[in-house]
Amino acid sequence: MPHIDQIEEAAARLVGVSVQTPLLRNSELDDAVGGSVLLKPECLQVTGSFKIRGAYNLMSQLGKREAKNGVVAWSSGNHAQGVAAAGALLGIPTSIVMPEDAPRAKLENTRRLGGEVITYDRYNGDREVIARELATQRGAALVPSYDHPLIIAGQGTVGLEIAADAAALQRLPDQVLIPCGGGGLSSGCAVALKSRLPGVEVYVIEPAEFDDTARSFASGNRVRVDASARSICDALQTAMPGELTFPIIQALASGVLTVTDAEVRAAMRFAFRHLKLVVEPGGAVALAAILSGKLEMAGKTTAVVLSGGNVDAEFFGEVQAEPN
Amino acid sequence: MPHIDQIEEAAARLVGVSVQTPLLRNSELDDAVGGSVLLKPECLQVTGSFKIRGAYNLMSQLGKREAKNGVVAWSSGNHAQGVAAAGALLGIPTSIVMPEDAPRAKLENTRRLGGEVITYDRYNGDREVIARELATQRGAALVPSYDHPLIIAGQGTVGLEIAADAAALQRLPDQVLIPCGGGGLSSGCAVALKSRLPGVEVYVIEPAEFDDTARSFASGNRVRVDASARSICDALQTAMPGELTFPIIQALASGVLTVTDAEVRAAMRFAFRHLKLVVEPGGAVALAAILSGKLEMAGKTTAVVLSGGNVDAEFFGEVQAEPN
Repeated sequence: MPHIDQIEEAAARLVGVSVQTPLLRNSELDDAVGGSVLLKPECLQVTGSFKIRGAYNLMSQLGKREAKNGVVAWSSGNHAQGVAAAGALLGIPTSIVMPEDAPRAKLENTRRLGGEVITYDRYNGDREVIARELATQRGAALVPSYDHPLIIAGQGTVGLEIAADAAALQRLPDQVLIPCGGGGLSSGCAVALKSRLPGVEVYVIEPAEFDDTARSFASGNRVRVDASARSICDALQTAMPGELTFPIIQALASGVLTVTDAEVRAAMRFAFRHLKLVVEPGGAVALAAILSGKLEMAGKTTAVVLSGGNVDAEFFGEVQAEPN
Repeated sequence: MPHIDQIEEAAARLVGVSVQTPLLRNSELDDAVGGSVLLKPECLQVTGSFKIRGAYNLMSQLGKREAKNGVVAWSSGNHAQGVAAAGALLGIPTSIVMPEDAPRAKLENTRRLGGEVITYDRYNGDREVIARELATQRGAALVPSYDHPLIIAGQGTVGLEIAADAAALQRLPDQVLIPCGGGGLSSGCAVALKSRLPGVEVYVIEPAEFDDTARSFASGNRVRVDASARSICDALQTAMPGELTFPIIQALASGVLTVTDAEVRAAMRFAFRHLKLVVEPGGAVALAAILSGKLEMAGKTTAVVLSGGNVDAEFFGEVQAEPN
């Protein structure tokens, strides 16, 4: 488990690189859920998701020789952009293996940031194998999307900022909800939050179709789910929790909750209509959890991480056009 | 001209009522305009626009007898929501005359906030006459949407926050761009900004079809334009600058710039794709001005107010679907 000092070191490295996203309040949201909510909108982060935090933290600590050969990563799109942006800032060539059906915006932005994009078929290929082969060929370092201490520490800076800004607002959260794919963000934030706010309850939120962390949490062992399942939460389609991330979640989280695609779509509409924020499906799962009543909110202050906002206009418009 | 002390008093009244919206940075925007930009997203404000600031500042200072009879206002939608929300907080009944073709979201939200909505035909009726008659009948106070010292002072708190947050970021703006309808926001902000940052240049931005302030600024006298013109900027369709607001703009602004509907649509797309913010047409005019190259940006820090985000999903989707 990373020590809080490692998350503080990551925060120091990220000064001037990542945006210290604000902690927002919204009275219509408070009314809708019957409690007090603090929103951490990482959709406003550089590259539109929290991923630059971990990617930059790791990549800025590569040795000169390693950096020269470039890095390889695999990603459904947000980690891809984080890696490409960090590479552009650090002068490190980046290659990222991405599913060919990733949101167009994610593919285009990764290329625009200077990343070399290698696509594969999500349902028939194994991106990890492709990436590892490429890294070996080129002598390049791998930048994992969650299962690495420096990635976990980088993503944990989100939790540090929540604790600091909530203290400044004089409204400490009783519970914090964090979207979970492989668990880098949720495990890092759990360490930061439990260190800064010892009584806080941390909840991890997954799409119902990729409930590997929920099943693993219930059984006490890492469980693999069907990787070919379909979910609109393209950023959270991880079939098994990480080797490093899961024990942290198991030790520190109070629970793992799941939300359906319909609940996520409703949350994206709420974000558009009332929060005026563009939130992608995977970024909206924690918001979906509170809007669909999965947790007691009355008399409590609940912090919710909106982890990303990279969504294609066409799909976004389709969701917004649905009746509420 | 309101004194800076009156804007500070308004800020004190608004503590716990309005949101201190953040000052955001976005590297993709900086790259796109070739300069350093600070964004003030009032779309994240209570009711989705800055309007609650002025409405609450005025309405919280009504006498008990005045308050009992309620208030009447006229508005294309954002002031309506600000007045209704302030009324709900203060226990003051509110009636608002709104065009029947106002965005559905604005009509619905005003009603949801407890406002009585009276619709009229924008192209054949005179909302001011309707509102004044209603106020006389009921012995109700009028809450003007811009031409009142307490409204101007309330909207000016946006400028105070920009100056304070820019100082905290150690990045003071050289120029600030502010959307302009009747001029309440821009005149109030001009007073606050010129007081706090004496060397700052303030620019006021209008839709090209409602360039009354630009024409007035050029001629030195208040000019009226065709009130039946069409613009997508429903929040900024004012045919003549205010009696109180215009002299302030004339004295303090460095210039008045106009943007076309096409430039506004492109700005709304940029906000969706890169800023992850929902910005309504009128709220996007200042962003449109910098994205379309109306001002020198190189080597400068430019603050831009995004004044609102109340836009119907259908129209928003139509704009997002257009090629860039």
